[in-house]
Amino acid sequence: MADGARGGDALSLPDLAAIRAAHARIASSVHRTLVMTCRSLDDAVGARLFFKCENFQKVGAFKARGACNAVFGLSDETARRGVVTHSSGNHGAALAYAAQRRGISAYVVMPSNATKAKQANVAGCGATVRLCASNLAAREQSCADIARETGAVIIHPYDNVDVIAGQGTATLELLEDVPDLDIVIAPIGGGGLLSGTAIAATSARPGIVVYGAEPAGADDAARSFASGSLEPLPQPATIADGLRATLSARTLRALRTCVTSIGTATEEGIARAMRMTWERMKIVIEPSSAVPLACLLERTLDVAGKRVGIILTGGNVDLDTLPWQR
Amino acid sequence: MADGARGGDALSLPDLAAIRAAHARIASSVHRTLVMTCRSLDDAVGARLFFKCENFQKVGAFKARGACNAVFGLSDETARRGVVTHSSGNHGAALAYAAQRRGISAYVVMPSNATKAKQANVAGCGATVRLCASNLAAREQSCADIARETGAVIIHPYDNVDVIAGQGTATLELLEDVPDLDIVIAPIGGGGLLSGTAIAATSARPGIVVYGAEPAGADDAARSFASGSLEPLPQPATIADGLRATLSARTLRALRTCVTSIGTATEEGIARAMRMTWERMKIVIEPSSAVPLACLLERTLDVAGKRVGIILTGGNVDLDTLPWQR
Repeated sequence: MADGARGGDALSLPDLAAIRAAHARIASSVHRTLVMTCRSLDDAVGARLFFKCENFQKVGAFKARGACNAVFGLSDETARRGVVTHSSGNHGAALAYAAQRRGISAYVVMPSNATKAKQANVAGCGATVRLCASNLAAREQSCADIARETGAVIIHPYDNVDVIAGQGTATLELLEDVPDLDIVIAPIGGGGLLSGTAIAATSARPGIVVYGAEPAGADDAARSFASGSLEPLPQPATIADGLRATLSARTLRALRTCVTSIGTATEEGIARAMRMTWERMKIVIEPSSAVPLACLLERTLDVAGKRVGIILTGGNVDLDTLPWQR
Repeated sequence: MADGARGGDALSLPDLAAIRAAHARIASSVHRTLVMTCRSLDDAVGARLFFKCENFQKVGAFKARGACNAVFGLSDETARRGVVTHSSGNHGAALAYAAQRRGISAYVVMPSNATKAKQANVAGCGATVRLCASNLAAREQSCADIARETGAVIIHPYDNVDVIAGQGTATLELLEDVPDLDIVIAPIGGGGLLSGTAIAATSARPGIVVYGAEPAGADDAARSFASGSLEPLPQPATIADGLRATLSARTLRALRTCVTSIGTATEEGIARAMRMTWERMKIVIEPSSAVPLACLLERTLDVAGKRVGIILTGGNVDLDTLPWQR
């Protein structure tokens, strides 16, 4: 898939300077989100946890960062044609928001099983929503069709240098607020967040350890990370609807370069970690956000006694169907 | 009911100095909670809202403030006998927490229909829980029995000068963080929070307006406020389980002196406001916390164009039974 005007070649990645530039570019359009702590979760895990609350971010997810950076970086001539993407929801809402801030059109292809809250989020920002089947081929086809019909530029949810740079800005802020972290953990879907997180963290703080956290039912990244080549799953199955996407060559390269280990979590573990976060921290997070904590509770990542930053990806949940009520 | 060692007579109330003293006394045992804002709720209401997030408070509710102030204010000789109270849950947990901080025993009488989350909260702090029928007479009887058997001092959930002073400390912080508020709103159960809020706000900022917010199904305070004499309801009926209690002569006096108006909210309105807060602010609040917003959305309190502080009372919710799923 094309990357839009500034995507670079298929393996290029942002550096720390690009992530810092992204931070300056998007600062007036995104929130500098809170870092929260919770004594009882620390005790449950045996470490000191610092949660970067991107559930409080614009559109309810970190995706606002990457989308704003990509959209704001387009030339005027390119931007005029509008932007298009496919997304399980949060990137779609984020692209809609970024386009609205810039005053251009946005088209968002969403799988028909995306939560109502996420669909409403996208439409609420003035984007045109097109539903399609819940598989990558259908989504890419719809996206390409719209690009051809309208001339809109495709902004990929994660396989895009500017998007990755934008996602990395959350970690810049986290490290400013908590300079002495030993470990940073982010969830993995397509790997855009983890790539930006890992590049930002290891560049800004040499010696820091970066972990990925993935649902066991959608563990293409753990497999690809281990083997060194892309191993997409035909049917990822997880309640973490933001984490069903597949690594690209670009994001695999970032992970192999900057990430130490990838943990996986069971579906039960994800639901339990999500519920614990709601009950103990009193914040609403989506299932994807709970995957790092689930890995810590299921001991697939070792953080004993460490100071650990965790990126909470977002808080867009369908409140009619919660995982522990199914 | 007796007030414990420092309760004063049946109508005495704290002044601003007492609330400031409470703040100093409890500062190391409670959180200075966040003040959050939300553009989309501002737009829904037509005012600028500042939410004091006591859902992030110790034990998940503002009640930690009043309980700590009351327990820390006991003489060593009195404290040694332990403390006892009846509570729909949050004051019980708060008293258990305060007693634990001071290293003394706590006994908590809870109605058998208190949420599981609230029962667990109390037991988790090391208090002895005794369940009883869900009416005031049964609760007061159990409480008196325990006091007689053990010598423990009764710390009433709201009809206590030190408890009221403690609850007022949330408003001191809110006014420090947002000095130019026009209005402050707090929910009403027994009136302890609203009494402390109103005394703190009107003393520290003469000219500020204080509103109460109450479920229409438990509107004894609105009735008593209008008539000037206590008008308890035989069967308060509301999902706002923290607001089923009845004003005392003391809290009615505070309200008649310092509160401008009391709004009421329907059950549907409370559930809707609670859900909107979860969806848009991404925070977990209990039904009681949603009552002020519900009054604004149902226009039973007028805040058009004003800067409005709202005390979010707490976030202890049974996640298995949410109001919009009944």
